Amino acid sequence: MRSAHVGASSSGDEASGQLLPLELVDVAIGSRVWVILKSAREFRGILRGFDEFVNLVLEDVTEYQFTESGTDTRQLPSMLLNGSNVCVLVPEGGASERTAA
Amino acid sequence: MRSAHVGASSSGDEASGQLLPLELVDVAIGSRVWVILKSAREFRGILRGFDEFVNLVLEDVTEYQFTESGTDTRQLPSMLLNGSNVCVLVPEGGASERTAA
Amino acid sequence: MRSAHVGASSSGDEASGQLLPLELVDVAIGSRVWVILKSAREFRGILRGFDEFVNLVLEDVTEYQFTESGTDTRQLPSMLLNGSNVCVLVPEGGASERTAA
Amino acid sequence: MRSAHVGASSSGDEASGQLLPLELVDVAIGSRVWVILKSAREFRGILRGFDEFVNLVLEDVTEYQFTESGTDTRQLPSMLLNGSNVCVLVPEGGASERTAA
Amino acid sequence: MRSAHVGASSSGDEASGQLLPLELVDVAIGSRVWVILKSAREFRGILRGFDEFVNLVLEDVTEYQFTESGTDTRQLPSMLLNGSNVCVLVPEGGASERTAA
Amino acid sequence: MRSAHVGASSSGDEASGQLLPLELVDVAIGSRVWVILKSAREFRGILRGFDEFVNLVLEDVTEYQFTESGTDTRQLPSMLLNGSNVCVLVPEGGASERTAA
Amino acid sequence: MRSAHVGASSSGDEASGQLLPLELVDVAIGSRVWVILKSAREFRGILRGFDEFVNLVLEDVTEYQFTESGTDTRQLPSMLLNGSNVCVLVPEGGASERTAA
Repeated sequence: MRSAHVGASSSGDEASGQLLPLELVDVAIGSRVWVILKSAREFRGILRGFDEFVNLVLEDVTEYQFTESGTDTRQLPSMLLNGSNVCVLVPEGGASERTAA
Repeated sequence: MRSAHVGASSSGDEASGQLLPLELVDVAIGSRVWVILKSAREFRGILRGFDEFVNLVLEDVTEYQFTESGTDTRQLPSMLLNGSNVCVLVPEGGASERTAA
Repeated sequence: MRSAHVGASSSGDEASGQLLPLELVDVAIGSRVWVILKSAREFRGILRGFDEFVNLVLEDVTEYQFTESGTDTRQLPSMLLNGSNVCVLVPEGGASERTAA
Repeated sequence: MRSAHVGASSSGDEASGQLLPLELVDVAIGSRVWVILKSAREFRGILRGFDEFVNLVLEDVTEYQFTESGTDTRQLPSMLLNGSNVCVLVPEGGASERTAA
Repeated sequence: MRSAHVGASSSGDEASGQLLPLELVDVAIGSRVWVILKSAREFRGILRGFDEFVNLVLEDVTEYQFTESGTDTRQLPSMLLNGSNVCVLVPEGGASERTAA
Repeated sequence: MRSAHVGASSSGDEASGQLLPLELVDVAIGSRVWVILKSAREFRGILRGFDEFVNLVLEDVTEYQFTESGTDTRQLPSMLLNGSNVCVLVPEGGASERTAA
Repeated sequence: MRSAHVGASSSGDEASGQLLPLELVDVAIGSRVWVILKSAREFRGILRGFDEFVNLVLEDVTEYQFTESGTDTRQLPSMLLNGSNVCVLVPEGGASERTAA
């Protein structure tokens, strides 16, 4: 989604108290992150680097692939993840397990 | 969707009484928002920041995933959400529950 | 769809009698519009603002979600709609009910 | 689809006898056109305007939605159609009815 | 697919014996072409014009729509075809009928 | 996938021993290539030309369409192939037949 | 996914300890990599080159295609892989076999 700019506030300086998207990623360098893709895949690993397209370099990674028969996992020493597949990035601490309503 | 510009009115100054898309997001900083994705996912959380691609930083987040067997929920402390998946953003107050016709 | 420019006529000045796409949206500011998405969703509400990507700010909105079991509706006080999902925008007056052939 | 330019001939001047895509649309201003979308939808209406992204302003429109149970139609007074959904635009005269082989 | 440039050879001058994509289209102006879309549709008609996005103006067109129950055809006097749907363009002569292995 | 540049090495000069993507295509001009699309289609033919979007001009082409009932083939004298559909391009020699594990 | 820049740290200089995405690819030149596509395909081969769109030149390649009836493999001497299909790139060492939970 692209939108026309509106001025200072969305430039994320301290005065406005904003935390810009790439600032959240920047702060997570060196710590564990959890990346949820648009497809039924998730990755947990240590964030080593990123660029303006939110392509990510991860290390010590566990891949989770959700299939109808359950969850397959794989260990990947290091990897480059294409930012265009990323839906959500969750820094350290991660999230609680899913509860079904 | 991209369209060729038509002049002042769509630049959203007070005189035209318009509220530009990013102005609505800007005003919502620090308050609860409800984000509906293109896929069967929704997130409710506090908006901490955004950029011109409407990538969003949310905190204290509940994720809702709608499956055939019901709705799964997860708590996420903080997250970056890829703007290209966002269909609708609803500031504070949120919406009424769905009624089936 | 993008196409190479052909000169004045598609610049929409009065002389050519054209109504440019964003001019139609501009004229609809403050009145009710009906927005049909690419997916099985429609929104009716008051148009408050837009930008060159036809991202829309709507208020006093009713969301229609067409499912196999019927139509679910929701009331949304105000919202930002991602222009890339918009298929059709119909200003005031809206359209007649669908008739099946 | 984007392709690297090759020189004068694709600039569509009279000498080459070419009719550029937007020239075909330009000529159709004020007359009936038939627009076939990528999805199972078609619109017939009077073309009021367009822009370089082939977003279209149509008036006095009939919408045709092809479903498994038949064809639903709706009348729309005026509308903006997102160019990215357009597959084919057929000026005046339209086309013959479909014949099944 | 986009790729970083490598120098003269891909600029398609006679010396390299290359035939650039838009040169193939340019040469086909005024003759019959066969256009195969990404979806189950094909068009055969006379090529009148094109632009750098390979949007095409065709005349005296036959549309072929392949459905489970067979092939539907329609005659279109003239049309604009959105280049982003084009998979393959085959100049004059066309191709042999399909043979099933 | 787009990524921020890192300097000389990815500019593919001889010193780094790299073979840039378009260099591989450039070298294949005039010889047979095998193009595997994202959809269930493959083309084998002589590469005549290409551009920076890896749109390809092929001659003396065989099209392979994989369906549930088997493989349909067609002969195409010459064609333009939209680069956005290309998944893999394999120069001369091609590949071994597929073996099922 | 595209995001607005935040300054030095995401420019990946040694001081910040970051490893930029294209740096990871650059370091892998000449060694074996494992490329996982968005679709059910994977490739293992020697990385010969790449560009800023992460289009990849691979040699001595094994293609893995996962179907309902099992995994088909093919040997490809050399190939160009379209970066827009790449989901994950894993340098040397690769990953452990998948374990089903």
